[in-house]
Amino acid sequence: MIIFLKDKLLLKNIRFFQQFLINKNIETTEVSWKKQHIFIVKGRLGGFMKREIQNHKWVEKILEIDRPYKLASRVFNMNSTKIRLANISIGNKEIVFMAGPCSIETRDQIRNIAHEVKSAGCQILRGGAFKPRTGPYDFPGLGKIGLHFLREAASEFGLAIITEIMDVRDTEIINNYTDIFQIGARNMQNYPLLKELGRVKKPVLLKRGMWATYKELLLAAEYILIGGNNKVILCERGIRTHVSETRFTLDLNIIPYLKHETHLPVIVDPSHGTGRADMVRAMSRAAIAAGADGLLIETHIDPRKSMSDAEQTISTIELKKLVREVKKLSLAVNRE
Amino acid sequence: MIIFLKDKLLLKNIRFFQQFLINKNIETTEVSWKKQHIFIVKGRLGGFMKREIQNHKWVEKILEIDRPYKLASRVFNMNSTKIRLANISIGNKEIVFMAGPCSIETRDQIRNIAHEVKSAGCQILRGGAFKPRTGPYDFPGLGKIGLHFLREAASEFGLAIITEIMDVRDTEIINNYTDIFQIGARNMQNYPLLKELGRVKKPVLLKRGMWATYKELLLAAEYILIGGNNKVILCERGIRTHVSETRFTLDLNIIPYLKHETHLPVIVDPSHGTGRADMVRAMSRAAIAAGADGLLIETHIDPRKSMSDAEQTISTIELKKLVREVKKLSLAVNRE
Amino acid sequence: MIIFLKDKLLLKNIRFFQQFLINKNIETTEVSWKKQHIFIVKGRLGGFMKREIQNHKWVEKILEIDRPYKLASRVFNMNSTKIRLANISIGNKEIVFMAGPCSIETRDQIRNIAHEVKSAGCQILRGGAFKPRTGPYDFPGLGKIGLHFLREAASEFGLAIITEIMDVRDTEIINNYTDIFQIGARNMQNYPLLKELGRVKKPVLLKRGMWATYKELLLAAEYILIGGNNKVILCERGIRTHVSETRFTLDLNIIPYLKHETHLPVIVDPSHGTGRADMVRAMSRAAIAAGADGLLIETHIDPRKSMSDAEQTISTIELKKLVREVKKLSLAVNRE
Amino acid sequence: MIIFLKDKLLLKNIRFFQQFLINKNIETTEVSWKKQHIFIVKGRLGGFMKREIQNHKWVEKILEIDRPYKLASRVFNMNSTKIRLANISIGNKEIVFMAGPCSIETRDQIRNIAHEVKSAGCQILRGGAFKPRTGPYDFPGLGKIGLHFLREAASEFGLAIITEIMDVRDTEIINNYTDIFQIGARNMQNYPLLKELGRVKKPVLLKRGMWATYKELLLAAEYILIGGNNKVILCERGIRTHVSETRFTLDLNIIPYLKHETHLPVIVDPSHGTGRADMVRAMSRAAIAAGADGLLIETHIDPRKSMSDAEQTISTIELKKLVREVKKLSLAVNRE
Repeated sequence: MIIFLKDKLLLKNIRFFQQFLINKNIETTEVSWKKQHIFIVKGRLGGFMKREIQNHKWVEKILEIDRPYKLASRVFNMNSTKIRLANISIGNKEIVFMAGPCSIETRDQIRNIAHEVKSAGCQILRGGAFKPRTGPYDFPGLGKIGLHFLREAASEFGLAIITEIMDVRDTEIINNYTDIFQIGARNMQNYPLLKELGRVKKPVLLKRGMWATYKELLLAAEYILIGGNNKVILCERGIRTHVSETRFTLDLNIIPYLKHETHLPVIVDPSHGTGRADMVRAMSRAAIAAGADGLLIETHIDPRKSMSDAEQTISTIELKKLVREVKKLSLAVNRE
Repeated sequence: MIIFLKDKLLLKNIRFFQQFLINKNIETTEVSWKKQHIFIVKGRLGGFMKREIQNHKWVEKILEIDRPYKLASRVFNMNSTKIRLANISIGNKEIVFMAGPCSIETRDQIRNIAHEVKSAGCQILRGGAFKPRTGPYDFPGLGKIGLHFLREAASEFGLAIITEIMDVRDTEIINNYTDIFQIGARNMQNYPLLKELGRVKKPVLLKRGMWATYKELLLAAEYILIGGNNKVILCERGIRTHVSETRFTLDLNIIPYLKHETHLPVIVDPSHGTGRADMVRAMSRAAIAAGADGLLIETHIDPRKSMSDAEQTISTIELKKLVREVKKLSLAVNRE
Repeated sequence: MIIFLKDKLLLKNIRFFQQFLINKNIETTEVSWKKQHIFIVKGRLGGFMKREIQNHKWVEKILEIDRPYKLASRVFNMNSTKIRLANISIGNKEIVFMAGPCSIETRDQIRNIAHEVKSAGCQILRGGAFKPRTGPYDFPGLGKIGLHFLREAASEFGLAIITEIMDVRDTEIINNYTDIFQIGARNMQNYPLLKELGRVKKPVLLKRGMWATYKELLLAAEYILIGGNNKVILCERGIRTHVSETRFTLDLNIIPYLKHETHLPVIVDPSHGTGRADMVRAMSRAAIAAGADGLLIETHIDPRKSMSDAEQTISTIELKKLVREVKKLSLAVNRE
Repeated sequence: MIIFLKDKLLLKNIRFFQQFLINKNIETTEVSWKKQHIFIVKGRLGGFMKREIQNHKWVEKILEIDRPYKLASRVFNMNSTKIRLANISIGNKEIVFMAGPCSIETRDQIRNIAHEVKSAGCQILRGGAFKPRTGPYDFPGLGKIGLHFLREAASEFGLAIITEIMDVRDTEIINNYTDIFQIGARNMQNYPLLKELGRVKKPVLLKRGMWATYKELLLAAEYILIGGNNKVILCERGIRTHVSETRFTLDLNIIPYLKHETHLPVIVDPSHGTGRADMVRAMSRAAIAAGADGLLIETHIDPRKSMSDAEQTISTIELKKLVREVKKLSLAVNRE
């Protein structure tokens, strides 16, 4: 059960109310959600107690949510969340294209790609500076200087940026550069990291773990939301299955599920999701047809020269084709 | 390696040629493919032997296919296979809609559904008379009388029909009624059944096993093709994964893969593929956007009263919405 | 609910009783189980009706089974089923070893292997004559002559035999040779085949499909049991997972589950289950430690020369080591 | 390729050698392994360069390792690693039993359990103070005070302890209490955490992610080893599969694989691995029969009262039975 307090209460009154709950032995989690003050009750209350709370002079309303996640649930927030970022609006009618290389490699590389990404019609530039790598001998990314190159390239062409955070101790430095934090699939249940990003003010794109159920993804999002950061973007990027022809199995079934279950925007990453450049265009179209709000695409001027993920990276020429096809399709599904 | 013989050879000459191969210790499989006569060579031949065969007076050409499946491969047949059925053409520009109940229950039930299926704009009526059921105490279908009801309803409304075969011994009786044979997912590797349907003249829709890789599906198709039946339709219907929110995970990634690898038409069954009626519309759109040639949908006048698969069956009202949406989208992906 | 009739009723009385049920609109399945006559009721009955049946003069007792499978359930049969075959007893204290080649290749091959299998201490000889092969160009087995070689070799060394059936139309011919019918993993849900083997008198080893849940395996067994054949042996042989280092993931967790849920014997096939000869010994020990009643092992005098499944086939020398290790371990888990 | 330097080189000489490699454009990772100094070369070197290095006056030997992991490979270290902890030796002939509650709940709870764990014959006490929980509203553990209770209880009964670390920032505090650090399955690819634990001096038990291949587990271990901490224990705890009867599928096939591939000890957690208390004993026996070096078991005086993971927790009475059975079996597989 969620308790919404009335607007413009004095902090003193909020504390009084909290004490009132404690006196009744009601355990709660306190959350600031936009401008509202809410308490999420653990466990179930009896009918008498519910009415007593409902009738309390500082209580606006109560809401029962029959899901393990509360803030992420569409019951909590009927209207789809729209995340504004400069002139972009994620979760709105427009399809959002995030594209760029797996890793930032050099100043020129990211600048050249940024130019192509912009001219393809994308709004957001992706690029990894701190890279999670399966083995310790692989290229780990350029680190801070990479962030600098990324920001520089994005600014020149009027793009926003998204980049990955792996280490709670990097929050401040990445916050100095990025517009959107990305939490990689491997970290979907890295709870200290989720909590840390609950405290930042910027949007967080949360990738689904390759082992995760839909519920587990929503519970991971709840960890961020509960910290007061309501700008969470969910991202499907493929799951582990028995199929050997693709690197992962992109699971588009999650899109209608999430669209029904949650108010948060949903993005699809067909590059990681399939691990095959030759499938990216078809699966991008499918993702948007299924209802996704945008795409996260790995692209490179010359994918064969990419330092990482070459097999799943499309050329910037292919990217332009992709954007054109998706835009054409968008209109047929009432998007822009 | 495949050896294509010249047109219009006398049977006597074909047998001579075959003896020539046997004398050289070359093991082959002989196939009649449309009007052509071909031999598929087991193993690899040396360069000298290849040239000798290539230069043989009755040989049209030879073709190397670097895949375990040969006839199913797009290398074998560059042009997409189009399967004609009355005025329908499967694998062509038009999207094919196959819809109907899980099981044929009564004469009225199938007639009423046929009426709605037709008015929704579908071309083919589906319905099970011999049903594979996980447990022996579940409704196994009406059998022969069901086939009769199905044909009657389809004829009244000018629809073609598709129905499932489970038992090699039912080939003749089902052949008397159906336009398309369906091989269910559980029977994808039922080799006697595949071989049996290699000998019929009618199209066969082959469903992917819930455990199968893409290669295994194509090898199963090869079993039918090798028998001389070149009208095979492949169907994705979901795989077993760890995801618990859906009954199966519909794997649309197979569509671009198959479209690249094979000339055979590809159909998607989002009803079984997700097991959830509330996902069928979104996944139908996604399937067509990814490049599928058609859809196989479970529908019922009142899904709650369906004797089987109620959770994944959409109402005929929902079906009409689905067809409209898909047709709108088809144009945006250059289909009809 | 299951209704057990009293012993030694006249057939006339059984039919009377059946009519009594029909008059009450109670749908049932009639089964002959050993020497007993039972009716399995579909759906649930009210308390009044239950008592009326329970008190019927020809009714011995009724039994509620809260599982979708009834005859396979341990509630139905508290004592573990022991299947006797010459001087072997499957499901008893002794560990049963079934070993032999994937395919019967020549008379000498199977004879030589039979000799080694016997001297290793195994009781049953396996060998495929009708082989399910993923692709149509692979060696399909020797067919009938293979069965002949198998029986000959087994007889010479005093072994029983087990061989696979794929096609319902082969029942009679295989029945002429084999002691145990094997249903392969791909055919676990081939319902016509299950029903066919419900009518034979010989034991049936039913392999778990690589996609199947535990419940689905038990429901497949139920199809055989319901036909009156109570000699079903369950066999774990690996499932499809994301793991790429093994061909399948042998799922030993099913053993304690089955031992609790069903009275049927449980055999493990570590050869197919892992697809790797170097894991067979360790997983054989683990299977017996977990409670399995026996093992099904692929072995060859020289595995490198095996015409199929070479990677998972152990040498007969390795087989002897395996049997010794397993026998030593058996005593520590109160087996023989 | 790995370069081993000679013993007792001056630091100055090591730096000279490093400069020599840099001058040749050879990228390396430097590792202190026990008392040895080694350089791991990235990529492949030509034969001439190899000989030059091999003949260098400070080089002891070079070693080619044809695996993506080097230090974790058995090629690098032929002898199995034995990790000594007080009078316990993990990876040696004796079977190591780690047991305790999922979460430390109260001082009395952990003390009572410690008493039973000791009297059952276990050597190590487990208990979570910082708990990774799927949802943010679940009990997160007692934190620091929990560690205190755990150490107190273990000390009273002469047990060593193991507890989980989730947050890199907790390293120091947990290091003050624990004997063994545990990295949970969700954090198997939390690279900052792996690196952090590469710098501590205590053993680290690394749980396999529920999505991970065998190679990925070994590469995760490599991250710790490369930091200079050579006391890594690998732990199998179940993977995500389609099976619905168990919470995870305990994958014992990994045991013979790891025993062949790596010198590191292997522990099995059948409690998480199955998620079912009624399977823990059977799977414990199977794990040891397959070659595991020990077990990690969740136990509670009264599992029904456990605050977390009640379904998979066995009673301390059941634990005693388990230890007895496993010890009996150990002798039959040449363990103690």
